[in-house]
Amino acid sequence: MAKLVGNLIFGQSGGPTSVINASAAGVITEALKMDCIPKVYGAANGIRGILDEKFYDMGAEDPAELELLKTTPSSALGSVRYKLAAAEKDPTDYRRLLEVFRKYDIRYFFYNGGNDSMDTCNKISKFMQQSGYECIVMGVPKTIDNDLSSTDHCPGYGSAAKYVATATMEVFLDARVYDTPMVCVLEVMGRNAGWLTAATALAAYKGFGPDLIYLPEVAFDKDAFLIAAKKAFAENNGKLMVAVSEGIKDKTGRYISEYGSDLASEKDSFGHAQLGGTGSVVADMLKKELKCKARAIEFSLLQRCAAHCGSKTDVDETFTAGQKAVQYAVEGVTDHMVAYERTFVSGKYVTGYKLVNLSEVANTEKTIPAAWITPEGTGLTKDFIDYALPLIEGESRPPIVDGLPRFAKLKKVLATK
Amino acid sequence: MAKLVGNLIFGQSGGPTSVINASAAGVITEALKMDCIPKVYGAANGIRGILDEKFYDMGAEDPAELELLKTTPSSALGSVRYKLAAAEKDPTDYRRLLEVFRKYDIRYFFYNGGNDSMDTCNKISKFMQQSGYECIVMGVPKTIDNDLSSTDHCPGYGSAAKYVATATMEVFLDARVYDTPMVCVLEVMGRNAGWLTAATALAAYKGFGPDLIYLPEVAFDKDAFLIAAKKAFAENNGKLMVAVSEGIKDKTGRYISEYGSDLASEKDSFGHAQLGGTGSVVADMLKKELKCKARAIEFSLLQRCAAHCGSKTDVDETFTAGQKAVQYAVEGVTDHMVAYERTFVSGKYVTGYKLVNLSEVANTEKTIPAAWITPEGTGLTKDFIDYALPLIEGESRPPIVDGLPRFAKLKKVLATK
Repeated sequence: MAKLVGNLIFGQSGGPTSVINASAAGVITEALKMDCIPKVYGAANGIRGILDEKFYDMGAEDPAELELLKTTPSSALGSVRYKLAAAEKDPTDYRRLLEVFRKYDIRYFFYNGGNDSMDTCNKISKFMQQSGYECIVMGVPKTIDNDLSSTDHCPGYGSAAKYVATATMEVFLDARVYDTPMVCVLEVMGRNAGWLTAATALAAYKGFGPDLIYLPEVAFDKDAFLIAAKKAFAENNGKLMVAVSEGIKDKTGRYISEYGSDLASEKDSFGHAQLGGTGSVVADMLKKELKCKARAIEFSLLQRCAAHCGSKTDVDETFTAGQKAVQYAVEGVTDHMVAYERTFVSGKYVTGYKLVNLSEVANTEKTIPAAWITPEGTGLTKDFIDYALPLIEGESRPPIVDGLPRFAKLKKVLATK
Repeated sequence: MAKLVGNLIFGQSGGPTSVINASAAGVITEALKMDCIPKVYGAANGIRGILDEKFYDMGAEDPAELELLKTTPSSALGSVRYKLAAAEKDPTDYRRLLEVFRKYDIRYFFYNGGNDSMDTCNKISKFMQQSGYECIVMGVPKTIDNDLSSTDHCPGYGSAAKYVATATMEVFLDARVYDTPMVCVLEVMGRNAGWLTAATALAAYKGFGPDLIYLPEVAFDKDAFLIAAKKAFAENNGKLMVAVSEGIKDKTGRYISEYGSDLASEKDSFGHAQLGGTGSVVADMLKKELKCKARAIEFSLLQRCAAHCGSKTDVDETFTAGQKAVQYAVEGVTDHMVAYERTFVSGKYVTGYKLVNLSEVANTEKTIPAAWITPEGTGLTKDFIDYALPLIEGESRPPIVDGLPRFAKLKKVLATK
């Protein structure tokens, strides 16, 4: 079969990760090798950059800087949170995309993101097909949330999990140095899926982790929580560490972070509203119940950009998945996302790659299987540990200059026509 | 001169750092080699463990685990925040210490900490002298605050500064990926000295750091701040990063953290206000002024226990300073702290070691020289960069097992008599 000849555009979408640029490096360096792809463009701020005709000529970049993308966190091209309307309702954006694709002879559209981005890919592909414009569309997965269906795990998860587990171990040691009671609550990202919060169980598995872990997969019951916390606090001689997903909810579906306003109206002698995230709210509950200082630590953005503590397995897989997406596309595959399969060679984990249909992935969410959560709902089973350990294997770090990371610096030469 | 023969006790005090155990490793492994020191004890929770006769026989530890202390964060023996009264006012604790020293034939007392701990050392030494009990007292410095006088810098600072600068670079990239306004406030530890907050200037020096830096050394003026912030925000196309020390105060001496809340109401046993929330208060100011989302990120405990991102220079110096303290003590030196001197060999930074009198260090604080702060008071000069860069040089990391740090596990065999 003759290969489709035309230019490629690559865009990054949604919340960044510490390895999203490894996807970019994989796609871009591989595409630059292909004879059937004369020009490789990088869209500024994802789909927004295509609509605005603002994208960069990746062939103008220094190959050494493209190589550095592998260990440079965040989205080097810029990201976006822009949801396309259904084409039937409002085809404006789609028509504009088609216009830009035609103008720049774009025949390969690669989009890097999570559920929403795969949905975007899917919609664009359908519109192009209906318009009779030949264009190969490929999804490149990413998300620290690890919630994409049809893939064993997601690019970015291993590195975020490694950082969260490492930092949890360190904080565990730091938070219990005094001979006084200590309560520490770690808040981890994850609105609906608890995969990243579950990574604190890896720290616990090593003996340096939380006593109790609360995931969005399990309805949070304040009374049961306080009983469990009191018990663990007493058993551990006045030390307690709790990990919570930012997205934990009670059985009525109300976010625990919203409990904050209740607590403030209950008890605040100064009349100040106790605002804050889930971790602060939970720490406040514990402070009142256990009558001691309770510290909340929010991993915040740190957990998704810690390239200095990346998983080599994650970075290598992510780069390879980007390369493979290009190889498949050039062979004529379209409307698919590259996904991971768990394979073993002589009992050792080896990443397997496969293709999944975009429509299969778009807008679905994979949460932690109930069987991997302990019966009390406050911990993870050995099945989860066995699942996660291979994903955090190996050390990936940026090159160091003057004791600090040397991150990629792109020229970002704007494409013109 | 005949060497004083007797046992050694080592205690850790104050807030832990990621290298405080490197001091412990240096002191303990060196002391274990000395013929004049039959037993090496590690006090549980610093001075508290001596008063309670709770300390460990360090000779019973596996040498491999003592080696791992070099890369294990936090105080492995436990720390304490306990302030001894003046002996003239209440000699109870001093008499008890003397009793325990006599009982265990302790002739070498080593205490690892900051200003307050050097004061504790000094008081104990004076009491022992007045009581006619021969005992060598040595201070071993530590503090991420870098505020000890008479030393070029402090053990723990280089590693904390390296982590803060690294994480700042990463967050800088993460926080500006969208094509929408972004305001990010980083809160760094430091009550009275801004050394650690100044480390964010290293990130800025590399092109990935804050636009504005606020230190406790400069009175914070809200109006001037909002003008400067607005200007930087406009110049950077709607992006702004600000770093603040937790301890910034206005010209009346009021903590900025108190502007929005009652957070500074609690004081610790040394009379220091428990700070926190400065970042949130400042982010709130910016949110109102710039009318956009503003995120506060508190490095919290993460900045002082990030052994996975340690400075090799710092770890090596810290270990060596611990060894040297023992070597000096065995030679008869007492009432001193081992300090650092900045020396250069062929233009390259090489750590120099010296002794300073405890009374010189106790209860004094070294802040950033005014000449190293830019005239606007919102940044650091090249002099600071030149001072700090050698201190963060080299990578120190714990050995990795299963993708996670392998930290020291001590047996902690209680000493008996």
